[in-house]
Amino acid sequence: MVLHTGRHFLQIPGPTNVPDRVLRAIDHPTIDHRGPEFADLGRAVLAGMQRVFRTEGPVVIYPASGTGAWEAALVNTLSPGDKVLMFETGHFASLWRKLAERLGLDPVFVPGDWRRGVDPAAIEARLRADAGQEIKAVCVVHNETSTGVTSRVPEVRKAIDAAGHPALLLVDTISSLGSIDYRHDAWGVDVTVAGSQKGLMLPPGLSFNAISAKALEASKTARLPRSYWAWDEMLGPNATGFFPYTPATNLLFGLREALTMLLEEEGLEAVFARHARHAEATRRAVRAWGLELLCQEPREYSAALTAVVMPEGQDADAFRKTVLERFDMSLGAGLSKLAGRVFRIGHLGAFNDLTLMGTLAGVEMGLVAAGVPHRAGGVQAALDHLAAEPQADSPKLAAAGE
Amino acid sequence: MVLHTGRHFLQIPGPTNVPDRVLRAIDHPTIDHRGPEFADLGRAVLAGMQRVFRTEGPVVIYPASGTGAWEAALVNTLSPGDKVLMFETGHFASLWRKLAERLGLDPVFVPGDWRRGVDPAAIEARLRADAGQEIKAVCVVHNETSTGVTSRVPEVRKAIDAAGHPALLLVDTISSLGSIDYRHDAWGVDVTVAGSQKGLMLPPGLSFNAISAKALEASKTARLPRSYWAWDEMLGPNATGFFPYTPATNLLFGLREALTMLLEEEGLEAVFARHARHAEATRRAVRAWGLELLCQEPREYSAALTAVVMPEGQDADAFRKTVLERFDMSLGAGLSKLAGRVFRIGHLGAFNDLTLMGTLAGVEMGLVAAGVPHRAGGVQAALDHLAAEPQADSPKLAAAGE
Amino acid sequence: MVLHTGRHFLQIPGPTNVPDRVLRAIDHPTIDHRGPEFADLGRAVLAGMQRVFRTEGPVVIYPASGTGAWEAALVNTLSPGDKVLMFETGHFASLWRKLAERLGLDPVFVPGDWRRGVDPAAIEARLRADAGQEIKAVCVVHNETSTGVTSRVPEVRKAIDAAGHPALLLVDTISSLGSIDYRHDAWGVDVTVAGSQKGLMLPPGLSFNAISAKALEASKTARLPRSYWAWDEMLGPNATGFFPYTPATNLLFGLREALTMLLEEEGLEAVFARHARHAEATRRAVRAWGLELLCQEPREYSAALTAVVMPEGQDADAFRKTVLERFDMSLGAGLSKLAGRVFRIGHLGAFNDLTLMGTLAGVEMGLVAAGVPHRAGGVQAALDHLAAEPQADSPKLAAAGE
Amino acid sequence: MVLHTGRHFLQIPGPTNVPDRVLRAIDHPTIDHRGPEFADLGRAVLAGMQRVFRTEGPVVIYPASGTGAWEAALVNTLSPGDKVLMFETGHFASLWRKLAERLGLDPVFVPGDWRRGVDPAAIEARLRADAGQEIKAVCVVHNETSTGVTSRVPEVRKAIDAAGHPALLLVDTISSLGSIDYRHDAWGVDVTVAGSQKGLMLPPGLSFNAISAKALEASKTARLPRSYWAWDEMLGPNATGFFPYTPATNLLFGLREALTMLLEEEGLEAVFARHARHAEATRRAVRAWGLELLCQEPREYSAALTAVVMPEGQDADAFRKTVLERFDMSLGAGLSKLAGRVFRIGHLGAFNDLTLMGTLAGVEMGLVAAGVPHRAGGVQAALDHLAAEPQADSPKLAAAGE
Repeated sequence: MVLHTGRHFLQIPGPTNVPDRVLRAIDHPTIDHRGPEFADLGRAVLAGMQRVFRTEGPVVIYPASGTGAWEAALVNTLSPGDKVLMFETGHFASLWRKLAERLGLDPVFVPGDWRRGVDPAAIEARLRADAGQEIKAVCVVHNETSTGVTSRVPEVRKAIDAAGHPALLLVDTISSLGSIDYRHDAWGVDVTVAGSQKGLMLPPGLSFNAISAKALEASKTARLPRSYWAWDEMLGPNATGFFPYTPATNLLFGLREALTMLLEEEGLEAVFARHARHAEATRRAVRAWGLELLCQEPREYSAALTAVVMPEGQDADAFRKTVLERFDMSLGAGLSKLAGRVFRIGHLGAFNDLTLMGTLAGVEMGLVAAGVPHRAGGVQAALDHLAAEPQADSPKLAAAGE
Repeated sequence: MVLHTGRHFLQIPGPTNVPDRVLRAIDHPTIDHRGPEFADLGRAVLAGMQRVFRTEGPVVIYPASGTGAWEAALVNTLSPGDKVLMFETGHFASLWRKLAERLGLDPVFVPGDWRRGVDPAAIEARLRADAGQEIKAVCVVHNETSTGVTSRVPEVRKAIDAAGHPALLLVDTISSLGSIDYRHDAWGVDVTVAGSQKGLMLPPGLSFNAISAKALEASKTARLPRSYWAWDEMLGPNATGFFPYTPATNLLFGLREALTMLLEEEGLEAVFARHARHAEATRRAVRAWGLELLCQEPREYSAALTAVVMPEGQDADAFRKTVLERFDMSLGAGLSKLAGRVFRIGHLGAFNDLTLMGTLAGVEMGLVAAGVPHRAGGVQAALDHLAAEPQADSPKLAAAGE
Repeated sequence: MVLHTGRHFLQIPGPTNVPDRVLRAIDHPTIDHRGPEFADLGRAVLAGMQRVFRTEGPVVIYPASGTGAWEAALVNTLSPGDKVLMFETGHFASLWRKLAERLGLDPVFVPGDWRRGVDPAAIEARLRADAGQEIKAVCVVHNETSTGVTSRVPEVRKAIDAAGHPALLLVDTISSLGSIDYRHDAWGVDVTVAGSQKGLMLPPGLSFNAISAKALEASKTARLPRSYWAWDEMLGPNATGFFPYTPATNLLFGLREALTMLLEEEGLEAVFARHARHAEATRRAVRAWGLELLCQEPREYSAALTAVVMPEGQDADAFRKTVLERFDMSLGAGLSKLAGRVFRIGHLGAFNDLTLMGTLAGVEMGLVAAGVPHRAGGVQAALDHLAAEPQADSPKLAAAGE
Repeated sequence: MVLHTGRHFLQIPGPTNVPDRVLRAIDHPTIDHRGPEFADLGRAVLAGMQRVFRTEGPVVIYPASGTGAWEAALVNTLSPGDKVLMFETGHFASLWRKLAERLGLDPVFVPGDWRRGVDPAAIEARLRADAGQEIKAVCVVHNETSTGVTSRVPEVRKAIDAAGHPALLLVDTISSLGSIDYRHDAWGVDVTVAGSQKGLMLPPGLSFNAISAKALEASKTARLPRSYWAWDEMLGPNATGFFPYTPATNLLFGLREALTMLLEEEGLEAVFARHARHAEATRRAVRAWGLELLCQEPREYSAALTAVVMPEGQDADAFRKTVLERFDMSLGAGLSKLAGRVFRIGHLGAFNDLTLMGTLAGVEMGLVAAGVPHRAGGVQAALDHLAAEPQADSPKLAAAGE
């Protein structure tokens, strides 16, 4: 066993590396969640989250994991036995389906091969076929964390519209929000689900719903039982910056700091460009190693993570174990039917060129150390790309004259 | 407006003052929740929480507020339309009832005057009258945070047994666990509900269920829909220290540290004795001021907080505002029907004699500043008590020869 | 042995209780002390310290304790064998004298009884008698931390001027700066010595010299050997925000935060008023207990600490030990010839009414617990004063319309 | 201007990257430096530093930068006008000489070319020529931070012994202690000088002297004036864990944590092996780039940092500026006569393979971005070495059965 020194490389696709500033913001005495100082905090984070979701509508913040926000999206808008159209983009889409079933919904699950995103044409066809409008919601995982595939949500919206179907559009952005361009209002999404521990650069423990007017209307007649997740309980107190039950105050301190970084300092466009550039460098490394990308649709490559297929006969988990023990880096495992066959490199959140290079070096050294057949040169390929394609100047800094 | 310097006194009855050590433990980089380091953390906090609950049975930890753990206790054990026997001990008992209703249960709500605890005789009578055994659960708030009254759970257990009724016993210990003696197994409780932000000395964001074998059995046939809160999903991964979805890792870092403090350093018996002593000093102060305790049953005085009735015609919220602005101390408000009529002093969590004296001095100076009629001398009365009745030596330290 | 919970009361007269914000500022990654980000930090703290010293002249910041800044004041301005006029105001004045002797200076030490400050008339007399102008410097401890006596520096200045003597005026403000009104320029001080761990609310490890033009001129011919402390080495790099050798970067992060609190938020006038008010409340408590103040000159009462004389036959250290073990509060010891005969209460730095009340309660309970003869009621006397004489509104907040 | 996200790479040769654990240890409330809790801290860090210096003799800890410990070594052992033999190994050796001159000593400065270490033969020759034994001390910089050259201290010792000369041997280990093998006792060193901000993984602000019996004896007759630095003042209180003046308590909290990491967890042998391996990988990168190492003596290559000569006509500072702005990494500048001609890569302190790879990638990308002529492939060369030569298993972990 090798003793680890220096910083661990947490390169799973979330939780991501939390910036020191955010951890230090969390590390402040808890305040009275009914007092005036809290109201300022509450208003700030609710308003900031609207900007991140790019919505004028309400945002709800739960003291919960992202899984809770999945549940919230469903129980607030649907009734027992409702049909929901879901797509097998990967492990998390499958989990969301299972959750829907447990809640008493009736998912129509369109099968997929875990190597591409939602097919908008298939959605349109399914909805056109639903003459009785039994399907009440279309549920899409924007960025499938298990595969590194980003579905094209605007095209899903167009497909629903083309079918003239009234189903709600519910989108999981747990591993895309704050990393990959996303627009709740402009894309006509009804409920967006998000979590704190990925692009928002926080520890896990907060999750979110952004809510359209149509979804809010649906919630008035939806009959799935709900209390903790109930939007109506939240929206009243939220109007003045408060919460109906005790919020996770210290994580909200961290959220305020992270929002300042994303919105005021870097700017969302620059955040997205940064992630896209790192993802391209990563893919160049993978190709140079002679390894295969799991995602087979270039326009759906994820900017947040890259899933890599192991060569035939090689165990991804043995490889990941070598990387963890020898190089103190956590990589993402292949999940359920991909177990042992892929590993995932997270390159989202608080991240920069040198950390990416350290990450890719850890992969390449791990391939050597674990005896995985590959060509050398992946790190060099990524390096060449990053050096040749500099990160764009920050529009925020430019505006500030720096 | 007075500028505040030094430390805020957070003397609401929770969230409580988080120890520096616990905040600093939270302020560490998030780790991979699927890796070996996490398994050690998970096992440690699950085992520690069993010791705090005093149970051999399973404990479940949610990334959620206490309200979530209320919901979890109900949805895991009950079915739509089930009758649950609940008691109007105060605001939180009323909220739990409302939550039960929203979930589709049928609460039988025994009215109360918010000045005493659950009446075991009334329980026995109600259960004896329930010939058809339609009541599936008895729900009791151990320490009613809105009133400072601690119900006698062992007597409730005896009452149920005396009635020979099979109802489950569900107990909310959100503001008692880690402050007031509580024994899940010995007292025959089926589900205990708890939260992180009171006696456990953590920020809000974690909540807990302790589960009896009988409750676990009930969960197999309970039909309320559930997924996020589902025990069965939790207990499998928990066996090896993991969680089915992303846990609030950094708060778990804090929980591990707090458990060390409570279990290894101070010891639960000493923790309870400390709280009882501070509560007695507080009541002596209140009496010396000529003010009235809300709790009218001495054997039900809470060791965690003290609710004080304002003199006729005096507004508790105006008084609390004065205390906050002039002396930088947060006191608890009167809730719902007690609004404006009582204020609450939290004396639980990480707390000591001098902080209690500062707290009581803030109350007495606030009474002066706000022009509330009272007698001077409350602080002196508390001081006399604390000086005369020293805190017991720590058995833990004694055992260690210190 | 009693197990301590909650926060320790650090009521020695320094190091003082460091605000959480300041500790958290220190808890950031160290930066390159030769890079552009550091220059901003360096300029900010140097400019802020000028405002605290109330000087337009240069300030030097050492990575050192206050003792180092004493040494710096002497070695930069004096030559071997130089006579320096010093006053026995207490333990620290005596230590400074000893330091001067070790450095090869020739202190003329005016004896004192440790119960009052420097006598300006005595200074004038001594200087008038120094026809040969052999005395090169007058060294005064502004606030004698061992006794709680604050010497009248402006009157010392007048005395020197009245004597028409060219001696430099060197003043130690280690336990007064940031707590008690002090004006380097207006009072005609040549070198002011200060440290980080008292009114500046930082951990120990930084110390300061503020330097007049006359002192700077003197440094050009002063012949005591010096390098680490040499002003000339410092002032060049300081002009652009840098230091000649590695500065204590993380403590400078804390200093920047503390300066924001003192200068931008509370404002120095409010800081001084707060300390004065707390000191008056403390003295009222002492008198009510029937104990004696060490300081015998009311116009020299310290606003930063109060030294209390034990009743005849009572051991101050046994009392302090009781207070530490039973109530987890550190009080200051009597030093050298006052050992065992006095204890000292620090009420400076980040401090507020409720913390003062907790502090005084700890003293009163300690007097009971240790069996020290006294009258009850000191806490009440302080409480009555604080309630009757509210802290003034903050001019800073008022200006901001709050 | 590019906005920086993620962690800054602080790859100057000190201050180094402070581990989160150490920063968090510093971020605790300051304690009474005269109380029993402090005594435990004081004893722990003094004993731990003896183990790091590998000495049975006393160690002194100053609240000061390393420059202060240089001064301390001289003023405690020498008298005005004493000759000291010093060697021009680089910038820091030159600074130490200048400091000696300012203190009134008479350095005999053996010139050097800044590309190799101290020549033991030259020392022997000089000492043999010193028939009158006017040279009182030989001063050597163990690891010259400005050049990346590590002098062979054991051979220096042999040279002094061979010359039969009684001069003291004073060694600066500011950038080697805790990174490169060093043995105060076994190598017969009289005073070792060290600082906190390099291999000890702390922020700057502490420095050290390790003292031989011979040096202690010399201090009794040494006549340079001293007080702050005086060993005799320190050693008395140190015996019980205390200090004569206020120590930098919070930095000592950090030191205790860092000592645990170095001594109890990793073990010094493993620490040295780690640094040597990273240095070798770095040199392989430099050679692959076609750049020149400043150090021209392979047996004197530093394990703590590597200084690289820029190609003719290329400005090292322009290159470093590009690296800082584009890749958020601080590299060390060429100092004084090397200004603009070399840059320095720090690879010491809390560091690991992936951070080294990120560092070297930053250098290679910087060479591209700044248009510095070089060959690609340095990163690959380092990667190949690290993958082929795994870090040794930790003897500490092996002993613990892990």
